[in-house]
Amino acid sequence: MRFVSDNAAAAHPKVIEAIVESNRLDTAYDGDSYSAQLDAAFSALFGTEVKALWVTTGTAANCLALAALCPPYGGILCHRDAHIEVDEAGAPGFFTGGAKLILLDGPGAKLTPETVAEACDAIRDDVHQVQPRTLSVTNATEYGLVYRAAEVAALGELGKQRALAFHMDGARLANALASTGESIADVTWRAGVDALSFGFVKNGGLNAEMLILFRTELADEVAVRRKRAGHLLSKGRMMAAQVLAMLKDNLWLDNARAANAAAQVIARAASDRLLYPVEANEIFLRVSSEESARLRSAGFDFYDWRPGEIRLVTSWDQQAEAVDRLASAIAAL
Amino acid sequence: MRFVSDNAAAAHPKVIEAIVESNRLDTAYDGDSYSAQLDAAFSALFGTEVKALWVTTGTAANCLALAALCPPYGGILCHRDAHIEVDEAGAPGFFTGGAKLILLDGPGAKLTPETVAEACDAIRDDVHQVQPRTLSVTNATEYGLVYRAAEVAALGELGKQRALAFHMDGARLANALASTGESIADVTWRAGVDALSFGFVKNGGLNAEMLILFRTELADEVAVRRKRAGHLLSKGRMMAAQVLAMLKDNLWLDNARAANAAAQVIARAASDRLLYPVEANEIFLRVSSEESARLRSAGFDFYDWRPGEIRLVTSWDQQAEAVDRLASAIAAL
Amino acid sequence: MRFVSDNAAAAHPKVIEAIVESNRLDTAYDGDSYSAQLDAAFSALFGTEVKALWVTTGTAANCLALAALCPPYGGILCHRDAHIEVDEAGAPGFFTGGAKLILLDGPGAKLTPETVAEACDAIRDDVHQVQPRTLSVTNATEYGLVYRAAEVAALGELGKQRALAFHMDGARLANALASTGESIADVTWRAGVDALSFGFVKNGGLNAEMLILFRTELADEVAVRRKRAGHLLSKGRMMAAQVLAMLKDNLWLDNARAANAAAQVIARAASDRLLYPVEANEIFLRVSSEESARLRSAGFDFYDWRPGEIRLVTSWDQQAEAVDRLASAIAAL
Amino acid sequence: MRFVSDNAAAAHPKVIEAIVESNRLDTAYDGDSYSAQLDAAFSALFGTEVKALWVTTGTAANCLALAALCPPYGGILCHRDAHIEVDEAGAPGFFTGGAKLILLDGPGAKLTPETVAEACDAIRDDVHQVQPRTLSVTNATEYGLVYRAAEVAALGELGKQRALAFHMDGARLANALASTGESIADVTWRAGVDALSFGFVKNGGLNAEMLILFRTELADEVAVRRKRAGHLLSKGRMMAAQVLAMLKDNLWLDNARAANAAAQVIARAASDRLLYPVEANEIFLRVSSEESARLRSAGFDFYDWRPGEIRLVTSWDQQAEAVDRLASAIAAL
Repeated sequence: MRFVSDNAAAAHPKVIEAIVESNRLDTAYDGDSYSAQLDAAFSALFGTEVKALWVTTGTAANCLALAALCPPYGGILCHRDAHIEVDEAGAPGFFTGGAKLILLDGPGAKLTPETVAEACDAIRDDVHQVQPRTLSVTNATEYGLVYRAAEVAALGELGKQRALAFHMDGARLANALASTGESIADVTWRAGVDALSFGFVKNGGLNAEMLILFRTELADEVAVRRKRAGHLLSKGRMMAAQVLAMLKDNLWLDNARAANAAAQVIARAASDRLLYPVEANEIFLRVSSEESARLRSAGFDFYDWRPGEIRLVTSWDQQAEAVDRLASAIAAL
Repeated sequence: MRFVSDNAAAAHPKVIEAIVESNRLDTAYDGDSYSAQLDAAFSALFGTEVKALWVTTGTAANCLALAALCPPYGGILCHRDAHIEVDEAGAPGFFTGGAKLILLDGPGAKLTPETVAEACDAIRDDVHQVQPRTLSVTNATEYGLVYRAAEVAALGELGKQRALAFHMDGARLANALASTGESIADVTWRAGVDALSFGFVKNGGLNAEMLILFRTELADEVAVRRKRAGHLLSKGRMMAAQVLAMLKDNLWLDNARAANAAAQVIARAASDRLLYPVEANEIFLRVSSEESARLRSAGFDFYDWRPGEIRLVTSWDQQAEAVDRLASAIAAL
Repeated sequence: MRFVSDNAAAAHPKVIEAIVESNRLDTAYDGDSYSAQLDAAFSALFGTEVKALWVTTGTAANCLALAALCPPYGGILCHRDAHIEVDEAGAPGFFTGGAKLILLDGPGAKLTPETVAEACDAIRDDVHQVQPRTLSVTNATEYGLVYRAAEVAALGELGKQRALAFHMDGARLANALASTGESIADVTWRAGVDALSFGFVKNGGLNAEMLILFRTELADEVAVRRKRAGHLLSKGRMMAAQVLAMLKDNLWLDNARAANAAAQVIARAASDRLLYPVEANEIFLRVSSEESARLRSAGFDFYDWRPGEIRLVTSWDQQAEAVDRLASAIAAL
Repeated sequence: MRFVSDNAAAAHPKVIEAIVESNRLDTAYDGDSYSAQLDAAFSALFGTEVKALWVTTGTAANCLALAALCPPYGGILCHRDAHIEVDEAGAPGFFTGGAKLILLDGPGAKLTPETVAEACDAIRDDVHQVQPRTLSVTNATEYGLVYRAAEVAALGELGKQRALAFHMDGARLANALASTGESIADVTWRAGVDALSFGFVKNGGLNAEMLILFRTELADEVAVRRKRAGHLLSKGRMMAAQVLAMLKDNLWLDNARAANAAAQVIARAASDRLLYPVEANEIFLRVSSEESARLRSAGFDFYDWRPGEIRLVTSWDQQAEAVDRLASAIAAL
């Protein structure tokens, strides 16, 4: 019974079907009939004109966006625990040509206008210090917390004042939206987001993530950067087809709701151990090493976070029985 | 009837099956049970210990290899028409951190020890000129010519004398081997090749290419570079599964033979128009623009190369009827 | 009697004086009282508002300019024999983050609108091929030829049509202008040049070259890039002081005239051996290896170019006697 | 009366003399008769074979060293207040191709084996996290504290255990050694340092800093990187000459002693205000903004550090009268 991460779950059957269905001769790269539908499909979803490019990983989506938004000599403000800082092997430095991540603090990996402003103010405005040029937030955060539209908008507002471009790592944006019920437009471009990494792989996709550009004038540059980074797949139709399948009938939202619901079951059973409110599909618990061992020997697999802490992640296809058994096991510790 | 490129063909049914079969929970990234088999499977194929990493594009395979083989301040000797120079959007410069492609001439995009030696000799050995550090050849070449093992070995020998690392872009290596019947070991590591981009996507794969490291000590570095370039997919099992399916019962060789055979049918019909001998699955023909238009109006699609020249590429699944009709149409021009 | 290169000549006494005179406490970096005069001094010289930044080498001037003018994924059109291609150790790739030099032909290292247009036309406008973004010419060229203002303007005009930024490597611009008597404004910004590397070191300076930005909005970015490349010296006053000394009473033009005059003496004596017209301070001669050895044994030092060719360069301080002796020696061969 | 920074002081008369004396024709770049003496001169100074390359800034020295010691995908452990992090505009990211600075804490900008080990231990050993590859310390630190040889050796020992290359930013190494009287060998290579940025500009030099390589096999690579970064000056003799003048009769130590002595005068007068012990030539004081204004209006110039804190730096040529007046003024606050 695996609660290690949602990124290893199976792809949804409709995604597999779409791939199989698209498996016939078509134009190569992104010249195919599926990829051709993406801009329109996502523009409809967001209620504004966007450019939508597939890539195979969140790291690629994040770092292509950052490279387009931040010059090589600029700084990217992000949380100290942000995925781009902690888990991408320095990819932002590679893609941007050496831009610097400026690390901020904040509970649950969330940023606020105050912490961002304070970080900017601490930087002397001269050529000796790297000047902040871009802000990047993760929604839901690495600790499963959710930015509300108003919170994003406050950051976006500050960003405008400080001439910061604004990127959102939405590897689990679906879970965030499934949680709050807010509009995807309100949480992104209406709040000032310039570019969004929109995750599908953790949510039932096979290997297609989307990079959504609200500043559509960046699309040509990003398309070149994608090719130059080796991310323009030959059979792009398979990428687009799976994403279109995810969009159809809001499968992406249904999947996220299922994962979130499973997380809530566990959260309720572990309410006195929660390190953070459970707002999406990640649960961080205070669990002693002895207790952790007991859970493992009962067949549950999960991630050891820090000493005395574990991380559980639920997936779109998490089996109800396993979830219930885990909830009981935690309650019984 | 499409003869534009093999990289847009359908994936082989067994590849699709393998992907579907692998679509269940497993360890993420390359920690899965399929990826774990790759080193052994390719070591068996090559008859020597290798490290084998999947990536999604030939550009990624080529440029990760080049980044590991050439320092940022070094030069990469390649043919003027090499894919890395002409069709990868400057990816070698991006991945290596600015290494320089040093462009050589030679008929059919083939290099010889003489041209390589001459190019090296023309470079002053001082800090002002970029020193050659790596040699890269494409086999089969961009014009569908094949390097024989002895030819590669001669280049490898020269490379050793000149302290050049040796990379082979084998996007169509399967076609080359299907053509000559030579041993894959003889054409690669026994001939001095250090790293091989081994193509599957043009040959029935979906989106997995392999980077084969004969200098196995480079594997750790390349694995980091792959992650850092955003090429470590979450569900790597799907990548490994399709490649394993291609290796099984030498499906990769069968596919290449089928493509080559189709090319021979066309070559025979167009023998007086051939710009190069047809040794793999690409056919370059002298065809006037009027003739080209006639072929197009007859339903054939292909690539206009230079004025008065067209390129035809056959795929593993090229239908015999279409091939025959094209052969007849060309003969009838 | 050394005719190897002008870049090893002594600095002019007035330059040394200026350095000595500036050797007292002042604000560090470029905050000093000398650096503060540069924008105005060069704006006056060029008859238009410019930004003027010192650097210590032509390589730094060229590559900071190129990095500001060309994105990492763009192409820089230049002559095959351009200094940035041949003699800067790949610095353009380093400074730009991997931009590609696209090499053009043309006698005497000169480019024409036709060769530039042809090169652009040969590039497919898609993401697979590096798109040209910047044009770079050297004036005087690496073979001592001079672009007339009208020639530069024709290139500038084409550049505008093709959306190319325009850089001029003016390591020997002084010699070019001393030769033609044309206006420095006409040869640069009025002809469409965006950024100029203005050489002083080969012309009596000690170690200060100037980067002149006609697109003044680039100055902030270039200032950051200069610092980031380690080129913002602590005691910048010494850099600015020597350049101001060179500007005073047109010392830079006087020095260039002296070098050119020496070159003409030699050119007249060697008129039947000239590989190129001598338009600045470089002389390329057909000289057999036996003749070359004779010149050397007579005490003349110079650069062996290609087999049967030598390069002679005259400096601002070339002694008349040595020049005359060389002229006689060549005439007597 | 300026106490802002030592990097804006005048160059020592003997340095100026040496430049003037070297101002005659010689071989260009580093082929001159002065540069040819550097390896031997510094090998003698360090009591071991070293390679010694001049550059014009500490940023260049630091970052060329780091680029040679750390791969683009590696991490560089340094103090949060290190110059390479705070004051070099992201140059380490540029020179290394995107390596990551991993920021450590410690009073007075000093690192200890414990903090370094702790930082290493916190990094998961997988491809997702940037692995530490290099350690960089500043001696004297950015707060004017000095590493003793034993402290450096302890760091070097840990570095060896953890496979970390070891760089020392010795912008004020002269001041550190003048303070402790320890041997330059003991504080550097005998303690495990691989590469040293040896500062001269803050200590009476004009614009030459030295990069000392104890791992001599790196010299060829660093020489290429220096050229590629535009740091190979044409008239290198002027660089080498000034450094040789600084070495002669230990002028560099005399200068540092003078600066340190001035700092001690001030430190004694301000002993109750010291934020750090004064071990070199920097003094950090608790001074209210009202007191700070009083000092300024009395004619003293210095750097405002943090609110309620000021930084004073003394130079080799600080006038005794100004020092005494400042000491009195502080005592009288």
